[in-house]
Amino acid sequence: MTDDPISPSMALLPAGLRDLLPPDAEHEARVVGRLMKEFTRHGYERVKPPLIEFEEGLLSGPGRALAKQTFRLMDPISQQMMGVRSDMTLQVARIAATRMPKSPRPLRLSYAGQVLRVKGTQLRPERQFGQVGVELIGGMQVEADAEVVLLAASALAAVGADGVTIDLTVPTLVPTVCRALNLSEAETRCVRDALDRRDTAAVAAIGGPAGDLLVRIMAAGGPAAAAVAALSAVDLPTVAEPDRWRLTEVVKLLTAAAPHLNLTIDPVEQRGFEYQTGLSFTIFARGVTGELGRGGRYRSGGDGEPATGFTLYTDTVLRAIPGPPPPRRILLPHGTPYAEGARLRDEGWQTVAVLEPGADLSAEARRQGCGHLWAGGRIQEIQDRP
Amino acid sequence: MTDDPISPSMALLPAGLRDLLPPDAEHEARVVGRLMKEFTRHGYERVKPPLIEFEEGLLSGPGRALAKQTFRLMDPISQQMMGVRSDMTLQVARIAATRMPKSPRPLRLSYAGQVLRVKGTQLRPERQFGQVGVELIGGMQVEADAEVVLLAASALAAVGADGVTIDLTVPTLVPTVCRALNLSEAETRCVRDALDRRDTAAVAAIGGPAGDLLVRIMAAGGPAAAAVAALSAVDLPTVAEPDRWRLTEVVKLLTAAAPHLNLTIDPVEQRGFEYQTGLSFTIFARGVTGELGRGGRYRSGGDGEPATGFTLYTDTVLRAIPGPPPPRRILLPHGTPYAEGARLRDEGWQTVAVLEPGADLSAEARRQGCGHLWAGGRIQEIQDRP
Repeated sequence: MTDDPISPSMALLPAGLRDLLPPDAEHEARVVGRLMKEFTRHGYERVKPPLIEFEEGLLSGPGRALAKQTFRLMDPISQQMMGVRSDMTLQVARIAATRMPKSPRPLRLSYAGQVLRVKGTQLRPERQFGQVGVELIGGMQVEADAEVVLLAASALAAVGADGVTIDLTVPTLVPTVCRALNLSEAETRCVRDALDRRDTAAVAAIGGPAGDLLVRIMAAGGPAAAAVAALSAVDLPTVAEPDRWRLTEVVKLLTAAAPHLNLTIDPVEQRGFEYQTGLSFTIFARGVTGELGRGGRYRSGGDGEPATGFTLYTDTVLRAIPGPPPPRRILLPHGTPYAEGARLRDEGWQTVAVLEPGADLSAEARRQGCGHLWAGGRIQEIQDRP
Repeated sequence: MTDDPISPSMALLPAGLRDLLPPDAEHEARVVGRLMKEFTRHGYERVKPPLIEFEEGLLSGPGRALAKQTFRLMDPISQQMMGVRSDMTLQVARIAATRMPKSPRPLRLSYAGQVLRVKGTQLRPERQFGQVGVELIGGMQVEADAEVVLLAASALAAVGADGVTIDLTVPTLVPTVCRALNLSEAETRCVRDALDRRDTAAVAAIGGPAGDLLVRIMAAGGPAAAAVAALSAVDLPTVAEPDRWRLTEVVKLLTAAAPHLNLTIDPVEQRGFEYQTGLSFTIFARGVTGELGRGGRYRSGGDGEPATGFTLYTDTVLRAIPGPPPPRRILLPHGTPYAEGARLRDEGWQTVAVLEPGADLSAEARRQGCGHLWAGGRIQEIQDRP
């Protein structure tokens, strides 16, 4: 680049894109590795879809909800349009349906990768971020719902996330109730808006049995045990019974397996659950803006296999956990035999070699962030001050 | 996707793109992790540039060589063109120059990530592949050249690569010799073509002292010790002396540190070293088509800091190493208490939970690829046949 000096604009990245520097990039990679390891420990097997696919596959069916968020590229080979993935869940569902149709169900798959979005949102200005998640495909059992929630919790615990809350919701509940009560489309939209604002007065203003019922459902939200009790007292239409039953059973399983898990229920939440078809959840951490992840039931692939799963957002997870421990770096003086460095590395040291003779080794160690120096065949601690 | 059955085309991916399935995706991730760990052990710190950048930064200077290989996207926010990275080395060089100009030199950085290319080549039909590498920025010492070669070798050894050969080259040598002998541009191109074909007769046909000298340089190639001896006997123009000196010194350092390393020298190779400015190398493995990686000296950033480094190509590396070990999976019968599964996982098992009662557990274990079953509080081995 000698004849091309860096212009100020060369240092600029497009909005919502950034470089991760030391030690953050390593920290992120380790955290992703640990989350994935937890998924493996629970029998989930990793798949890796490509960064780009044909638009037709990527953005059909439930993928339509992602169309506006997806960068498009022309494929010079096929002359067809391709999309850069903006979400990995549906890629994994495609793999389950088209590449692994004969693999035994339930099929447990995990994934980690980067996604790109055309525009950021206010809560998530990033246009590139990491997704790490699992899909459990081919099981309608409440045990499947409970398994993925517990897995999200144990994975986050494994990376040191503190104050995690899992907020359960059933995005199908309100639409089912509205249909059972014969609300018009306009009324349903009105209910939806009012519920999204958690505006009790506006919900009540729907009037009649619907208004009363929806206010009671909304009011049931809160810590799981109390919410389940409150919901059980609501006189739901029969068609909504399966939704309540599943929620109740899953809470029982979760409470038995993880009595200390912070579990809340928000029975009217459905924003962001565009392709979910049943019990869903959002993960938060105390003091962290935005969600750490979300998941829930959906229909996977062409024949609509029942599936559930979740995605964690790497950037938010990193804000909810402690930073990386300081590295154990040791400076190797110029000419240190290769075998001596190798021995130190095998003992867990990160070795930093001095490339030429004559340096003030203590000063060089401090300059290179090494807390120790290899001197005369011994490990010598570097004092903070010269 | 219930109302959108999968068309055959949904299962199709664009040419050169593919899904990695179990166990390959996990194997790849582990190998990348182990390579990166080896870089960390040698004091290299990870950075992570974004998948896309402004075209102006990504494709200027030495990046111009990549322009044809790079997918372009319009940024709806800035209305500027962006490129999807087709190589990570220059991104890392940009980070060193613009984001870490004050970090102490030599600066040791590592990276791992996916790149996309507009078209594959015959040797590498993939349009998406992984790069894993390091850059050592800010040192002209031969110790720096030796360090990165040794690091490539030790990283590949760490993942079990066998029969690795490192082929050293000096892409600046032939151009320097041609200039010193006052060859015309046409003659130099002719030399280049003949050398690329290793066509001794055509090189000799240049005639005069140039033809003779170039034939002797080409003939010097081969195992490192013999090649260094042969090259030392060649009467090189003085301006080519630094290239020979560096090659000789680096071979000395490599031989001292790793006497069993398979080291060859090809003094006339320069294909694919478009932005290299000095000692470079390509890595091969016995029986594996294509290169495992390549690296060498270049000038980094706006003020042309001396730098060297290398990139390994994940897909080729995977072809040079043993496959993954079989997982230790154990089936947990329906209703196994959560704490029992957790204990097994802590002992290194991958647990696979049965989601409903009533299954034939031995058959289910076989179906789910579990070699063991958790039965009555004991680990029971599953026989291959019922």
